Amino acid sequence: MSAPTKKGYIRPLDIRHGRVDMSHGAGGRASAQLIEELFQAALANEWLAQGNDGAAFAIPVGARMVMATDAHVVSPLFFPGGDLGSLAVHGTINDVAMCGARPLYLSASFILEEGFALAELKRVVDAMAAAAREAGVPVITGDTKVVEQGKGDGVFISTTGIGVVPAGVDVSGSNARPGDVVLLSGTIGDHGVAVMSQRESLEFETTIESDSAALHGLVADMLAAAPGGVRALRDPTRGGLATTLNEIARQSGVGMLLEEAAIPVKPQVDAACELLGLDPLYVANEGKLVAVCAPEAAEAVLAAMRAHPHGTAAARIGSVTEDPHRFVQMATRFGGRRVVDWLSGEQLPRIC
Amino acid sequence: MSAPTKKGYIRPLDIRHGRVDMSHGAGGRASAQLIEELFQAALANEWLAQGNDGAAFAIPVGARMVMATDAHVVSPLFFPGGDLGSLAVHGTINDVAMCGARPLYLSASFILEEGFALAELKRVVDAMAAAAREAGVPVITGDTKVVEQGKGDGVFISTTGIGVVPAGVDVSGSNARPGDVVLLSGTIGDHGVAVMSQRESLEFETTIESDSAALHGLVADMLAAAPGGVRALRDPTRGGLATTLNEIARQSGVGMLLEEAAIPVKPQVDAACELLGLDPLYVANEGKLVAVCAPEAAEAVLAAMRAHPHGTAAARIGSVTEDPHRFVQMATRFGGRRVVDWLSGEQLPRIC
Repeated sequence: MSAPTKKGYIRPLDIRHGRVDMSHGAGGRASAQLIEELFQAALANEWLAQGNDGAAFAIPVGARMVMATDAHVVSPLFFPGGDLGSLAVHGTINDVAMCGARPLYLSASFILEEGFALAELKRVVDAMAAAAREAGVPVITGDTKVVEQGKGDGVFISTTGIGVVPAGVDVSGSNARPGDVVLLSGTIGDHGVAVMSQRESLEFETTIESDSAALHGLVADMLAAAPGGVRALRDPTRGGLATTLNEIARQSGVGMLLEEAAIPVKPQVDAACELLGLDPLYVANEGKLVAVCAPEAAEAVLAAMRAHPHGTAAARIGSVTEDPHRFVQMATRFGGRRVVDWLSGEQLPRIC
Repeated sequence: MSAPTKKGYIRPLDIRHGRVDMSHGAGGRASAQLIEELFQAALANEWLAQGNDGAAFAIPVGARMVMATDAHVVSPLFFPGGDLGSLAVHGTINDVAMCGARPLYLSASFILEEGFALAELKRVVDAMAAAAREAGVPVITGDTKVVEQGKGDGVFISTTGIGVVPAGVDVSGSNARPGDVVLLSGTIGDHGVAVMSQRESLEFETTIESDSAALHGLVADMLAAAPGGVRALRDPTRGGLATTLNEIARQSGVGMLLEEAAIPVKPQVDAACELLGLDPLYVANEGKLVAVCAPEAAEAVLAAMRAHPHGTAAARIGSVTEDPHRFVQMATRFGGRRVVDWLSGEQLPRIC
């Protein structure tokens, strides 16, 4: 985000009525103006103010670090409980946090479609800035490109986050062991159903809101409650809880046994899923996490989760088993047992 | 790039004839297969093998770091001397290097269009992997999303790089001072003309190749030749040399005076620009840099540039002046003087 405009040489950007045009991506005066008057105005911080091709910062002595990235293409751009801008902040913060790290900084790259309304772009960037401020994780560098009308879809945002892993923390999807406890931070399916209901213009009796949230504060509390007791963390986004647990089972070479009755689902989400023909186990979440914990640490971690605003409905939903087939199985409400497989095919396109 | 597939459960990806479909972005089995058989196969390294939501790595004691990001939307995907994949590696490595940092790691996020041929995707990812290997800067984490046909354009790639600033180095576009020397690492306009000639199917007598290259080795040699003597570095990409120099002039609050005759342009690029109605000063480069140096360091830095394969045609092209208007001026071949302004409007869409 370099090249501030020479103020006074041009008229201010017409954010109310203007649209993105190809010159906004050309790297000249119009690009500089868009960056200064829209992006830097919203995201203002000392790193962007450096005005160089990248942003410089200091890192604590001898730190172990994490880097994570996410492309965000959610459609529509605005949905109950969230929008593309806040999602792009939350999604990448959460990926960093799921590695056990404290997120420090974000970068953002925008791919804009020619003709996209600047007012809409500003709403997205403002929401992004608000989410970054609330999370305490600034967007310190960025880039903007423009593609011709019909070669994009309004705006896509890719964010990358870096963070520092506290000493003594070793969290990885490959660390789960038989006997470990599986914890879930709250209800599942909220995000996917919120986006889907907006897209299909479905009217439910109560509005279903996305759970989109930054989870690094929750993770910090969990790690503080049982240092070394949290073995694996993951946020069940695309593919839902079922796919996330299969990922961990596969990575750790273990099985899992879930209790269907223990998995929290809001009644209105359950009803919407039935209407839409969806299984909540496979619906995306954007503010939930799964934790695999050492059995002796599980109670302390669960208590820390329930004490945090993003974990009030946290529950123990199952345990890790020895299983050469790496199956995730579920004890159903009716006393049976079934295999919970990976998501196959496409359930909900462009949910994040 | 998590979720390796359960091998043997599905047929291998048909890379030769297959196409991207929406299931490749759904986060389930098809996503995992695409990541494992195409992305991880090409980019294979120990960090991707961690299989978590992000990648972990150690950083030297108390380092000062840099983070830079770039979206890449070049069209066509392949052009003489380069392609989207290598460009996405070079572009971000260069942004990190222009901050005076040694690039360490890259992340990559892919936005794929439904229907895009997997064979084309593989060509792009293979080129990316080769560029990352050659540069010694691995892609350690990534993400992939798919949008419906007509909502994207084959593939867009956003890359983010992080690097470490060596002790004693302080490079910033705000550091230029009157009396400083302006150096350029080689000929200008090659990249923009190469892409444009491909797009317009223009036939020139000789093929004009993009200069796309990773410049961190060149930068390291320059910094070693005159520690503290290199004040500002920037790669003249979109907007070309003219816009880049205006950026530095604006950031540092200085003017510049260039010598037109000293700026190297290949004859075939000059001819193509004339044909296409372009000014080489505004055409994008992807393997060149501008350096502003303290006068006493300029000779040593220039010698280091000329000794490096990416700087053989390096030249002293002008000097920094005191100018409250922050004008970049140029002494023309005919003895006159003119102002070299920022690029205004769009000259070459989707050049990087």
